Amino acid sequence: MSAHLVAVLGRGVVGADEPVVTVDDLGFARGDGCFDSARVLTDTDGAARVVNLSEHLDRLDASAAALDIAGPTRDAWEALVAEALVAWHGSGEAVLKLVLTRGREWAPNAGPLALLSITEKPARPRGRVPRALRAVTLTSGRPSDAFKDAPWLLGGVKTMSYVGNVAAAREAKRRGADDAIFVSTDRFAMDGPTAGLIVVTDGVMRTPPTGDTGILASVTVDEILAAAAESGMPVRVELVPAGDLLTADGVWLVSSGRGPSPIVEVDGSPIRVDEELAERVAAMAGFGG
Amino acid sequence: MSAHLVAVLGRGVVGADEPVVTVDDLGFARGDGCFDSARVLTDTDGAARVVNLSEHLDRLDASAAALDIAGPTRDAWEALVAEALVAWHGSGEAVLKLVLTRGREWAPNAGPLALLSITEKPARPRGRVPRALRAVTLTSGRPSDAFKDAPWLLGGVKTMSYVGNVAAAREAKRRGADDAIFVSTDRFAMDGPTAGLIVVTDGVMRTPPTGDTGILASVTVDEILAAAAESGMPVRVELVPAGDLLTADGVWLVSSGRGPSPIVEVDGSPIRVDEELAERVAAMAGFGG
Repeated sequence: MSAHLVAVLGRGVVGADEPVVTVDDLGFARGDGCFDSARVLTDTDGAARVVNLSEHLDRLDASAAALDIAGPTRDAWEALVAEALVAWHGSGEAVLKLVLTRGREWAPNAGPLALLSITEKPARPRGRVPRALRAVTLTSGRPSDAFKDAPWLLGGVKTMSYVGNVAAAREAKRRGADDAIFVSTDRFAMDGPTAGLIVVTDGVMRTPPTGDTGILASVTVDEILAAAAESGMPVRVELVPAGDLLTADGVWLVSSGRGPSPIVEVDGSPIRVDEELAERVAAMAGFGG
Repeated sequence: MSAHLVAVLGRGVVGADEPVVTVDDLGFARGDGCFDSARVLTDTDGAARVVNLSEHLDRLDASAAALDIAGPTRDAWEALVAEALVAWHGSGEAVLKLVLTRGREWAPNAGPLALLSITEKPARPRGRVPRALRAVTLTSGRPSDAFKDAPWLLGGVKTMSYVGNVAAAREAKRRGADDAIFVSTDRFAMDGPTAGLIVVTDGVMRTPPTGDTGILASVTVDEILAAAAESGMPVRVELVPAGDLLTADGVWLVSSGRGPSPIVEVDGSPIRVDEELAERVAAMAGFGG
């Protein structure tokens, strides 16, 4: 059983502990690159597959375009992923991470660096929806329209410059919670450090818009919204006042790896959890059941 | 003549093109680390020295503390720098970069990664003040007090998550300028992507405060302010309205590597440049002359 696998475009699978990045790689030196993460499932026959790979490659392409990095072709990424999946011998769930950097500062002609890793996840009990989380709200320090007409702020781009997300998650743990929900200076709930946000109130499912808010488009949020709409549940993409979190029928932080995690507490106040609704939302994203 | 030198704590000087960073290094994977840059001068006898090394190590320590990374001791950094300077054979000016990451995600017991690089700068004509720049203003997307009581936003921390600074510099070039000046949503001039800001109006030197603004403390700005005060020039640390840039007697973007660069144009409008004042400010930072 491999806990970690690393593959580099142009080299194939390498040792997971082997240094493959130079000091002048701009992804390392300046966080100047992008990434995307997707869920890996290994079937009972041992064959591994990536959930929604195409959508994740689309989002990676969009991030690269926003950074003006000319990354590998779709075929090259798909071939690297296929090579990695053949070499992967995990038994349960795993996370695929695709990384693209601008390349080397001291050797600009070498071009971008493209690589991936696969990391096994701790086993999750079968038949359970994703783990419920206690959340705290943290200011994002920005108004909800901060990214309007300001592409240099890189709203909606999944860059390697992720330290703010890490620091917010650390602050949440410092406060005794599991995760954070960012709130804009004009008091709208935005997203989590590594997750999108879904709020259900009076039977209506809402998620905040991407675009001017700088919120990253979420493959799994989109999947849930589409399934909800198909099941007849009204769906709205709109700004959600932070105060609505406390009165909702359900709040979820949603990521590809963890699925839709129901929020049971915000800033110490309990949030209603409708178990049946939570199971439905988990099923919409292909989790639980 | 070496154009680049790399040294890693625990290993010493290594090949500049040698990969030394693993894929799971958190500085690479999440921009979760900090750095600092200082000016290196080689004397006529070939001996290299770092300008204000102690102040830059202080700032690196402050960044590491804000990120809750237990970095190497001061002695260990100083020994690594000394080893690198002995191995350095550049002829002119260079930039020392110190980098500290949180270490490996898959081998947390390995501890933080500490390394440095020295990179030669293009030759600068003697007896000239640092190059004059055309600047554009770009919104920072945040109010000037965004970082108040929000340490998770990492204001004033020189993190490896630098892609926003890179993107702003790229936007400036796209607009035909050399550099950018960030302006808060409440319309105060803040700093540049890689530089502090000094504005002189009616004989008074001003720089925006660190703290609630999130502006990084600048070793070279502090040096200039101290020299200005000593020369009898009134000095104020206060918010500077963006409109004041256009009516100033002088505006400078200030970094350790480039020194105080006079701004000759903001958003296409010419800025007054008092040559004598520009030479005085350059001299205050140990540049020009």
